[in-house]
Amino acid sequence: SCSKSISIEGHESYPKLILKKQDVPQIVEGISKYPLLKASFEKAKSIADNAILNGIEIPIPKDPGGGYTHEKHKRNYIEMYNAGLVYQLTGEEKYAVFVRDMLLKYAELYPTLGLHPMKKNQAPGKLFWQGLNESVWLVYTIQAYDCIHDFLTDTERKIIEENLFKEVVKFFLTENKSTFNRIHNHGTWAVAGVGMTGLVLGDTLMVKQALYSTELDSTGGFLRQIDELFSPDGYYAEGPYYQRYALLPFVIFAKALENNIPELKIFDYKSGVLNRAVVTLLQLTNTDGRFYPINDAIKDKTWITPELVFGTNIAYFNTHDSTILDVAQKQGEVMLSIEGLEVAKAIEQGHVKTFVRKPIVIRDGKNGDAGGLAILRMGKNEKQTSVLFKFTSQGMGHGHFDRLNLNIFDRGVEIVPDYGAARFINVVAKEGGRYLNENKTWAKQTIAHNTLVINQKSNFNGSVKLADKFSPKLLFTDLSNANIQMVSAIDENCYKNDTIQRTLALIEFGDRKFLIDLFNIKGIGRVQYDLPTYFNGQIIDSNFEIQRLNQYKILGNNNGYQHLVIDAESRAFDSLARVTWAIGTGFYSLTTITNTHTNFYVVRLGANDPNYNLRNQQGFIFRGELAGSGKILSVYELHGNYNPSTEAVLGSESAIDSCKLFDDNDRVAVYVTLKNGKKIGLFIDLSFSGSNSNRVKVDNSVVTWQGNYKLTIKE
Amino acid sequence: SCSKSISIEGHESYPKLILKKQDVPQIVEGISKYPLLKASFEKAKSIADNAILNGIEIPIPKDPGGGYTHEKHKRNYIEMYNAGLVYQLTGEEKYAVFVRDMLLKYAELYPTLGLHPMKKNQAPGKLFWQGLNESVWLVYTIQAYDCIHDFLTDTERKIIEENLFKEVVKFFLTENKSTFNRIHNHGTWAVAGVGMTGLVLGDTLMVKQALYSTELDSTGGFLRQIDELFSPDGYYAEGPYYQRYALLPFVIFAKALENNIPELKIFDYKSGVLNRAVVTLLQLTNTDGRFYPINDAIKDKTWITPELVFGTNIAYFNTHDSTILDVAQKQGEVMLSIEGLEVAKAIEQGHVKTFVRKPIVIRDGKNGDAGGLAILRMGKNEKQTSVLFKFTSQGMGHGHFDRLNLNIFDRGVEIVPDYGAARFINVVAKEGGRYLNENKTWAKQTIAHNTLVINQKSNFNGSVKLADKFSPKLLFTDLSNANIQMVSAIDENCYKNDTIQRTLALIEFGDRKFLIDLFNIKGIGRVQYDLPTYFNGQIIDSNFEIQRLNQYKILGNNNGYQHLVIDAESRAFDSLARVTWAIGTGFYSLTTITNTHTNFYVVRLGANDPNYNLRNQQGFIFRGELAGSGKILSVYELHGNYNPSTEAVLGSESAIDSCKLFDDNDRVAVYVTLKNGKKIGLFIDLSFSGSNSNRVKVDNSVVTWQGNYKLTIKE
Ligand SMILES: [Zn+2]
Ligand SMILES: [Zn+2]
Repeated sequence: SCSKSISIEGHESYPKLILKKQDVPQIVEGISKYPLLKASFEKAKSIADNAILNGIEIPIPKDPGGGYTHEKHKRNYIEMYNAGLVYQLTGEEKYAVFVRDMLLKYAELYPTLGLHPMKKNQAPGKLFWQGLNESVWLVYTIQAYDCIHDFLTDTERKIIEENLFKEVVKFFLTENKSTFNRIHNHGTWAVAGVGMTGLVLGDTLMVKQALYSTELDSTGGFLRQIDELFSPDGYYAEGPYYQRYALLPFVIFAKALENNIPELKIFDYKSGVLNRAVVTLLQLTNTDGRFYPINDAIKDKTWITPELVFGTNIAYFNTHDSTILDVAQKQGEVMLSIEGLEVAKAIEQGHVKTFVRKPIVIRDGKNGDAGGLAILRMGKNEKQTSVLFKFTSQGMGHGHFDRLNLNIFDRGVEIVPDYGAARFINVVAKEGGRYLNENKTWAKQTIAHNTLVINQKSNFNGSVKLADKFSPKLLFTDLSNANIQMVSAIDENCYKNDTIQRTLALIEFGDRKFLIDLFNIKGIGRVQYDLPTYFNGQIIDSNFEIQRLNQYKILGNNNGYQHLVIDAESRAFDSLARVTWAIGTGFYSLTTITNTHTNFYVVRLGANDPNYNLRNQQGFIFRGELAGSGKILSVYELHGNYNPSTEAVLGSESAIDSCKLFDDNDRVAVYVTLKNGKKIGLFIDLSFSGSNSNRVKVDNSVVTWQGNYKLTIKE
Repeated sequence: SCSKSISIEGHESYPKLILKKQDVPQIVEGISKYPLLKASFEKAKSIADNAILNGIEIPIPKDPGGGYTHEKHKRNYIEMYNAGLVYQLTGEEKYAVFVRDMLLKYAELYPTLGLHPMKKNQAPGKLFWQGLNESVWLVYTIQAYDCIHDFLTDTERKIIEENLFKEVVKFFLTENKSTFNRIHNHGTWAVAGVGMTGLVLGDTLMVKQALYSTELDSTGGFLRQIDELFSPDGYYAEGPYYQRYALLPFVIFAKALENNIPELKIFDYKSGVLNRAVVTLLQLTNTDGRFYPINDAIKDKTWITPELVFGTNIAYFNTHDSTILDVAQKQGEVMLSIEGLEVAKAIEQGHVKTFVRKPIVIRDGKNGDAGGLAILRMGKNEKQTSVLFKFTSQGMGHGHFDRLNLNIFDRGVEIVPDYGAARFINVVAKEGGRYLNENKTWAKQTIAHNTLVINQKSNFNGSVKLADKFSPKLLFTDLSNANIQMVSAIDENCYKNDTIQRTLALIEFGDRKFLIDLFNIKGIGRVQYDLPTYFNGQIIDSNFEIQRLNQYKILGNNNGYQHLVIDAESRAFDSLARVTWAIGTGFYSLTTITNTHTNFYVVRLGANDPNYNLRNQQGFIFRGELAGSGKILSVYELHGNYNPSTEAVLGSESAIDSCKLFDDNDRVAVYVTLKNGKKIGLFIDLSFSGSNSNRVKVDNSVVTWQGNYKLTIKE
């Protein structure tokens, strides 16, 4: 770890944390020149003006989240923060007076407080029911104090520092010590608050504790958090929805450190992972800016969200990657700091470059060795197709049991969706907006995902403890070709007796895209498997009779199965089953190699859901049996177009005539023959050995190829 | 009717139908000046250039709609039409040559043709399986001929006129005579084609027949069609989806008449109803430009549709209503004519005014006495709330049995939706894109709508013949106030023994909107009623226990009931039932006065639908009984806000504490008491007699008011 000898730079001028005294004149000038900066300043001013108009109220803490005193204390720090900034940018004393008076009242109240009366978990606060809120309060409030520091008398400063900030810090370092030292996002908020307070108060020990844990032994603290919570590729294990939120204290505290202890070179730490984490997060969005809703995630959340403004602004300032400006521009606001000034100026001067979503592999794990995500992408802008393949680690408390999960997005629409979290955030009637019980009974379960379920059990039998220990492994990836992108990953632990490998190849051919989806399962004994494909849209067609049920049948009793109603089923298949559905302007077909033992279900969510906590969601499930080892081949076909303006429809039918799989252990040949006679051949060495003499018997001849895979098109 | 002596203006220059010779120079100049005109010209040129590149093919008619020869003949007229225009605007002969050669080939083929081999209905074509397509072919092709008329030799003209156009016209006037004379949109296409051909060929009789029917007796023909198919308010009885399409031959033929027989003053006919029909149609859209999907309608169709370009351009040219420019601008293309020039110029010169959707009553029926539509509207732009109340006539073949139906839209989202048509237009696997059987068994039925169903039967027992004879009546409307808009209509015929009156009052109070929905039923004998509210979104909450079923139960056996699965039910109510759901950024609550006999169902579509032809749709149904007469009171509450960027939620819960109804025959007092103690009182004389001494006993006192209604707010 880093040297523990640090010195806080001796510039005596305040503010110095994020907004810096010496930058104020250029920012003030920039406000008159750059529309984005102006809009952001005006927003801050309007918040501050309203706050002054409404007067100061510091209620005795009483209510839990969503309640009056909770919301009021939240509003208070936002108001102080904005008033502090506006004081610096206007010089008008009324803003400083407002912050001063509120801080003095907090300094009166805080020392009188015990733990919050509604405390719920092991990390309570005093102003708030959760320590987390208290940390956030501190991160914003210390910035407000920083802004008015020079306006105050020595006596006022003494009162506020001794009775308020040092008290809050003491609370974190003693009563909330375990959170403070925890390698977890909640810990980051705590160390950010305490560390920034240390920088403002000139308290080197506080800063050291924030960096290296209360014991200064690097078992916790900010640096250890950066080490462990981000992969080298900048992935945060809980997934993009939480990464969006978790990034905030990282980039703010890092910025404050950069401004005051530049020799720490915090943005170079771990090869510059904090900047990379911002760009990686931006890549983890669909064409409309929505974060991919893996793990616990509120769907529809986009990159236009206030907490990401700090991320884009600081990352742009550090890297001058002008594609970040594209996102910053859409966000419509910037930081009131030198970073925001640079962003607003660059945008106004026309430096924006389009942010391009690329095919990408993002490694998970602190050392990049705990699986990851692959995003296969073809097509441009809002028409882009994305295939998200998830072989990450469990993702801590917010992770799902979704090893080797697949999601498909096309033309801005979620085609093969992820359920996200079972939660209606901030909706009073839905458990006050907290995670619903169905998050555990449904959303986290394996059957809720587009991946293989063995013997109707979830991965690791639903044990988070076990799941935390193992990650899938990336075996092979090649995203460098225009017409084929391939990835293969393996999980050897999520089912006790079986090793599961999933290989995806996205192929563009003609005006269609084909996603070859091959499972290679090696196991012992006879197992039943279910392979679900949840879909949005309307069933259009199938090449077999789908028998809708006129009785109420639930798919199973537990592990999520208890929530699935069987809407239709089919049995006794020929060699191929094909279903087509439509949504938006596109048509989508799933073709699967079947046999006479295959069962097919159309399922819908809603069983054992008395309070309508689950959304409507339909899915297809193919059920089969494996004796020991085996392979499962499906082909997704993205085709056709509906033009709502002219009502013209093109290519609404699947083009596939047949799919065939030939294999010899790890060597496989996949043939997709189209109705027009053309034939796609894909030959893979599933062991990815790099061998130059791969061979598979195909009917009565032998096919050979060199290297890990080969694509052929027979016209 | 008009004088039947007409003279086609003797200007010998061609083209003269829509694009006029004398306008060509200014249009050519305009192309270089006005971006919209330029884009439209370039689109036409690209179609024509591609056509020339691909060469001419006139296949022998063989395939039905969607098939090759069908699509090819459609493409041919589009190509000729565009090449004709481009010839005029560029003077390049290759375009004229293309049109000439194709016309000559058609002139060779057409006389050899019998009826189309795939003919399906009583009005077949020769080039196409349906005469309708043949009419459309003629409307475009005669314009192409008009454009190259002067380029041709006398001999060529003679061949084309005698062997092609006169043959087609003869076909319409003899074999397809009944369609030609029919007061129906298909008839309009036929008379437009024939009439425009008459204008180009200088054949006065043809034009007269188009105007006054084959027998010249005004039992059919264009003028009679205008008389009967549009109400004085410009409403077309089949509803907006069909009005969008039906308008096209009306405005094109009218424009051709205006250009060639100006003394007919066709755009003044019936007090200028054709211009009004355009603006009325624009009003029949939701905030995002989607047409309200009443009757048979493909949902998601918006005003950005090529066939409406003629409507907006011609209506703007005639009226200079600059709010039409707002729509024309969004359409992104203009006519290549003086009308399109004017529109493109006005837009470029900044004359666009925002098109404002207003509260409005639109009368139906040729004389405006066959019911109509009322749209209550509050709020601005994309945040607007619209309540659509349908008390129109049946709407001919595409009408639904939906007397007194209600739909609610809010913030761009369909909150209480209309199912629209059961049809997947142009999707091969769904019956070739035609209307599905479920259109009849579900979409048209009364239970598929948000209106009262008596004894599980549809209006008029599902008889179109009967339904065509009667319309509801508008009793009262007052849309002039800022905080309350009211409408009341009555239907005395849709159920044999019962008269049904529905009164809607949209009230804005605080930051919420309340829609008071009062049924007043006068009948004989005991009846069961069902009152459905279909909803989009997620059930959030209710003030009673909703019992989800774990058995498969269908609501009924016929009249649409056979498609509804009972998902949940509740019985034995207290005095008030309230359910809340959420969609988009809003929350919606429905509060209904109930009693111990009320039954409540949550239903979903999908029973007896083996091919998944019906979309998922959920609904609430309140079922009750009436002994003779009675009233049913519901209150819709539009409330709250979800901010997806900040995840903040406000007002997710209903504010209603109680609803009460007091009545004395036609005098009613409705009280809605809110949880904050405020009280909305609405007093209505349901006979709308204008009496100055209305009174109702309320508990132990008497409330009196003057006039048809009174709103009070008790703080
Ligand atoms: Zn998940
Ligand atoms: Zn309908």
